[in-house]
Amino acid sequence: MKAFLDKDFLLNTETARVLYHEAAEHCPIIDYHCHLSPREIYEDIRYDNITQVWLGGDHYKWRLMRSAGVDEKYITGDATDKEKFLKYAEVLGKAIGNPLHHWSHLELRRFFGYEGILNKDTAEEVWACANEKLRSGEYSARGLIRMSNVDIICTTDDPIDSLEWHEKLAADKSFPVTVLPAWRPDKAMNLEKPTYPEYVAALELASGMTIVTFEDLIKALKARLDFFQDHGCKLSDHALNYVVYAPASEKKVQKIFEKRMNGEIPDAEDEARFKYAFMTAMAKEYAKRGWVMQLHYGCRRDNNPVTFRAMGPDTGFDCVDNYAPSAQTAAFLGALEEAGSLPKTILYSLNTNDNAAIDTIIGCFQNGTAVGRIQHGSAWWFNDHFDGMSEQLKSLASLGYLAGFIGMLTDSRSFLSYPRHEYFRRIVCRIFGEWVEEGFYPEDINTLKEIVADISYNNADRYFAFDRKTV
Amino acid sequence: MKAFLDKDFLLNTETARVLYHEAAEHCPIIDYHCHLSPREIYEDIRYDNITQVWLGGDHYKWRLMRSAGVDEKYITGDATDKEKFLKYAEVLGKAIGNPLHHWSHLELRRFFGYEGILNKDTAEEVWACANEKLRSGEYSARGLIRMSNVDIICTTDDPIDSLEWHEKLAADKSFPVTVLPAWRPDKAMNLEKPTYPEYVAALELASGMTIVTFEDLIKALKARLDFFQDHGCKLSDHALNYVVYAPASEKKVQKIFEKRMNGEIPDAEDEARFKYAFMTAMAKEYAKRGWVMQLHYGCRRDNNPVTFRAMGPDTGFDCVDNYAPSAQTAAFLGALEEAGSLPKTILYSLNTNDNAAIDTIIGCFQNGTAVGRIQHGSAWWFNDHFDGMSEQLKSLASLGYLAGFIGMLTDSRSFLSYPRHEYFRRIVCRIFGEWVEEGFYPEDINTLKEIVADISYNNADRYFAFDRKTV
Amino acid sequence: MKAFLDKDFLLNTETARVLYHEAAEHCPIIDYHCHLSPREIYEDIRYDNITQVWLGGDHYKWRLMRSAGVDEKYITGDATDKEKFLKYAEVLGKAIGNPLHHWSHLELRRFFGYEGILNKDTAEEVWACANEKLRSGEYSARGLIRMSNVDIICTTDDPIDSLEWHEKLAADKSFPVTVLPAWRPDKAMNLEKPTYPEYVAALELASGMTIVTFEDLIKALKARLDFFQDHGCKLSDHALNYVVYAPASEKKVQKIFEKRMNGEIPDAEDEARFKYAFMTAMAKEYAKRGWVMQLHYGCRRDNNPVTFRAMGPDTGFDCVDNYAPSAQTAAFLGALEEAGSLPKTILYSLNTNDNAAIDTIIGCFQNGTAVGRIQHGSAWWFNDHFDGMSEQLKSLASLGYLAGFIGMLTDSRSFLSYPRHEYFRRIVCRIFGEWVEEGFYPEDINTLKEIVADISYNNADRYFAFDRKTV
Repeated sequence: MKAFLDKDFLLNTETARVLYHEAAEHCPIIDYHCHLSPREIYEDIRYDNITQVWLGGDHYKWRLMRSAGVDEKYITGDATDKEKFLKYAEVLGKAIGNPLHHWSHLELRRFFGYEGILNKDTAEEVWACANEKLRSGEYSARGLIRMSNVDIICTTDDPIDSLEWHEKLAADKSFPVTVLPAWRPDKAMNLEKPTYPEYVAALELASGMTIVTFEDLIKALKARLDFFQDHGCKLSDHALNYVVYAPASEKKVQKIFEKRMNGEIPDAEDEARFKYAFMTAMAKEYAKRGWVMQLHYGCRRDNNPVTFRAMGPDTGFDCVDNYAPSAQTAAFLGALEEAGSLPKTILYSLNTNDNAAIDTIIGCFQNGTAVGRIQHGSAWWFNDHFDGMSEQLKSLASLGYLAGFIGMLTDSRSFLSYPRHEYFRRIVCRIFGEWVEEGFYPEDINTLKEIVADISYNNADRYFAFDRKTV
Repeated sequence: MKAFLDKDFLLNTETARVLYHEAAEHCPIIDYHCHLSPREIYEDIRYDNITQVWLGGDHYKWRLMRSAGVDEKYITGDATDKEKFLKYAEVLGKAIGNPLHHWSHLELRRFFGYEGILNKDTAEEVWACANEKLRSGEYSARGLIRMSNVDIICTTDDPIDSLEWHEKLAADKSFPVTVLPAWRPDKAMNLEKPTYPEYVAALELASGMTIVTFEDLIKALKARLDFFQDHGCKLSDHALNYVVYAPASEKKVQKIFEKRMNGEIPDAEDEARFKYAFMTAMAKEYAKRGWVMQLHYGCRRDNNPVTFRAMGPDTGFDCVDNYAPSAQTAAFLGALEEAGSLPKTILYSLNTNDNAAIDTIIGCFQNGTAVGRIQHGSAWWFNDHFDGMSEQLKSLASLGYLAGFIGMLTDSRSFLSYPRHEYFRRIVCRIFGEWVEEGFYPEDINTLKEIVADISYNNADRYFAFDRKTV
Repeated sequence: MKAFLDKDFLLNTETARVLYHEAAEHCPIIDYHCHLSPREIYEDIRYDNITQVWLGGDHYKWRLMRSAGVDEKYITGDATDKEKFLKYAEVLGKAIGNPLHHWSHLELRRFFGYEGILNKDTAEEVWACANEKLRSGEYSARGLIRMSNVDIICTTDDPIDSLEWHEKLAADKSFPVTVLPAWRPDKAMNLEKPTYPEYVAALELASGMTIVTFEDLIKALKARLDFFQDHGCKLSDHALNYVVYAPASEKKVQKIFEKRMNGEIPDAEDEARFKYAFMTAMAKEYAKRGWVMQLHYGCRRDNNPVTFRAMGPDTGFDCVDNYAPSAQTAAFLGALEEAGSLPKTILYSLNTNDNAAIDTIIGCFQNGTAVGRIQHGSAWWFNDHFDGMSEQLKSLASLGYLAGFIGMLTDSRSFLSYPRHEYFRRIVCRIFGEWVEEGFYPEDINTLKEIVADISYNNADRYFAFDRKTV
């Protein structure tokens, strides 16, 4: 019987323990995709209590509470922070097998030094203990980042963003962590949205350009790409329904854009054509600049119209979309390759059934320009749990070159989420340990440590080649 | 080496053994979805031999025998009951890894006290032993149910059913088990079937109403819903190809129905529109009545035209259909929620690839009205095996709130199938035991027992809130 | 800690060890599907060095090297054989979890007696050791086959093939292994290809018939089927995008063919209609002749246009295609059954998500004519790794009759690939061992050995009933 979540959590072999404690544990973190607010980092915000930092914006936790039948009052409603925490503690105590149970306890241990269990019986004690720490000096946004041995953070930013807070952070010599923007132009692509023309107007303003044609749109975005690049950006991110392959003539695409600017919402086919043209143009720019393109797909968002009206997006009402034709993904990448404009790319699907398809698609575009030029991103969002991560790793190992994997990211809105990197690294070491002790891989501890450190840190470092802040 | 199927079958940790024997084993059974005949229960039928009770109508066993190359003569043909049993025993003896191997042996142990192995060498012995018991007093339908510690049974009934046998059972004070009808209106929905107009005529008769319009159809069904409700029904069940989202105007739907009543079979699009309207109308009624809606999908039936002609449906010729767009499932539930008519719902797909999609869809519709308001049903039919059940449980745990799961049902036509609940409970305890002894969850045995008992019995009891028979 | 890849590799229980060493290890090999060249066997080719035999045509290894960032120069380019080997060794040394790591080491052990590890440090030593052996007398094509205890080989042959080398092999009394052709008429089906009319012309030549109509096409193929049958062929193979069900009238099909011969490429619907008619006609012939039909699907080929231009097909740029409607597969087999022309069939999908669908589809067409009349083929191509094979076996066991499985094939272009049969058999024994020692299946060692030997050899022997060469 192993004790719950002790120092060798998840490390069920001696080999795993050696690998984790000697090769993974002390690697810094390159968190190349997250949703932290650069402003909150710059302003170094603080929290009055653990509910604010844990439950304030975390739709993972909200979903779990709703699943357990908790009334919305205690989730996003007008209950007090303490009442909300007590409810969460009660639910968490029985959330056997849910990754939040692991993550929450890891966070309590790593940040608050609380080594016990959180449930309805201990909720008061944890409330007091965590809040006391939060009110102490070091528990600010920057403090939490520093505690977590973070090297680089990439936020997620709209092309029209002024990058004001990134500039201030870059100029602030008192904070050594490199915080870079990442380019997320979804709003410039999603022409089916009612607010699209307004967005284009905002982009005109941000770029100082007039946008009449599709070509203008891309030109304005190029100006913004240059601006982002000047701020150290080397990475884009796209949220897609699925990766589309729908070639159309320039003229056709221009027509679709024109109609949209005149208020006409395109049908599904034209929408696909436009998005394909948009993605193609963006990819070309990324390739030219040596940026990495991230494609996130397989998600259906805002499924509950009632709660959407009440709370808006990103509040815990999204699900897996199982429509994502691998043929179109392969065709899109193939067309980019043919045009000489395939950038380094990371594919993430929310549907774990896509693992093998992704692992075999990336294999079609690897070459001598990089180790793992095209990557299968770490288990994403809902799949960011023990089984989901294990399956992503094993599938990648079986079908590709795991030693070249760039590893984990938090994808999080919370300054407490860094233990997810620890969780991931422990799972890597666990799998390696099992393979070695079963005789599936040689007990060559130096090579194993090298691979573990590479997946934990070095591969991402080489792959993105971010410019670090000089302090 | 653990002995085959001993008292700690599947329980590979001490924690699992404690949980099963102390918290799960003695819980009664709420079998909220099965295909038992209320008439056979009322008439308390008896069997001359084990072939009748085991092989008479069990297409799981027939499939296995055919897969092993057994001639149809020994399956559904004119061989003697004994010959059939001997063939089955021979095949079963080599059916390594098939759930029937476990289920059949569990049934021999629990009902007949036979602790040995069934194979070609022991077939004669088992034939004699089982038949002797079957001829003894207690091995009637009711006897078998009583032996199994069954609390509540929900059968599967057509809206036009008179519920005569349910009435008789309800009035029969000598049998303490609550037997309730469940509402399965597939025939009222499947307008593409050649016999649809005849069915509508039968529904007219049963409801005492004239059905000319779609509105009439729903009205007649409402009358029958009231009738079912008067007989304690709190649960519906639908067999769908997939969950359809195909909104159309009332007028359009009425037109489709009208045409069908005039003999015109609708095309695929109109069929979808009609079914969507039908499901929407039914869901509204369930929500109003506080009933639970069960949706079973992902099955393609009657794939072998030759055997279908010879034997009809439900004879072992069905397969997984891998077309089930999660977007439509989410949109259907979303539209119901928007209309204020989303009942408690249980989703079952025959395609295990849908697990994660289902687990994330249900998460979009949870709220304070119930623990696990929307449920991911237990591994269904073909997936009702060790790996299938384990995966459903782990997926639900990772993506939802497993502690709120309403657990197992038999979905069976056989009075001997109750050990499937035992099988399920053992798997739950096994998984929990592994998690605890690996340090994934605290060794908090009281909470664990509470969760195990909830999944085994209490959650279903609270979720359905059936009215029990008073005797 | 088990030593890496020792004699009990993968055999983690005593039961597994007994089963493998006593029942599986010494079974001969029936390699019923591979891509070996009959000419190379007849000419008994030899190799100067290990790069030629290992890296000459093995796109699995090429993919791995590209994934690790190796320049094409060292893969298919103008680097020396030794340089290429050194690069491969370096990559392989870190290819943790990839089946090539296991296969390559198994091959080094079984053929070259090299018991060490291959990585960048040992590459020189292995280069010398392997090359020395290769230059010795017995390491020719036939020598390698003989070392591997191969009983029967089925190659993959085009209908227009003269079978010259098969004839010579059949006449060569000095080589006892039976080498038979297998019928692969993809080029006669793929009318969307630009070279289709040329192929039809070549078929006219081979058959001595004029082909004007679709009927002519089938007639010509029948003549070739007879010719193949005269050379011992009992097995066909088809590479499909997915299994199509698209019935059309004879007239319609004839029209499509006619148009194509006049230079018009059909649209997607007509292509499907033609292919369906083609497959239906072929299946009928197979059924008549008692042949087995193999259907391989779920692959998207030649995804990288740049490398395709440079290197052509089968060079490592294929991926999983996740579009394969199980409904169409079931409908196709159903239509054949209805017409009395469903042959023994083996279904293979490159998409492991199809496992359960396949296992339930085959269950719809089993009957007394054979043990496992319809088979779920062993994990194919990319899935031919530890997890992929394990999942295929467990899915088949859970949903069908594993004891009737015809087992492994190499699907390989290499004379060194036979240890994949060993790998497969070890996995079978491992799974059985775990089941037995967990108490999931009785410790009935004789029955277990019988099943293991059946899956390793006897089932394939009975299923295909090949005529062996008499020497």
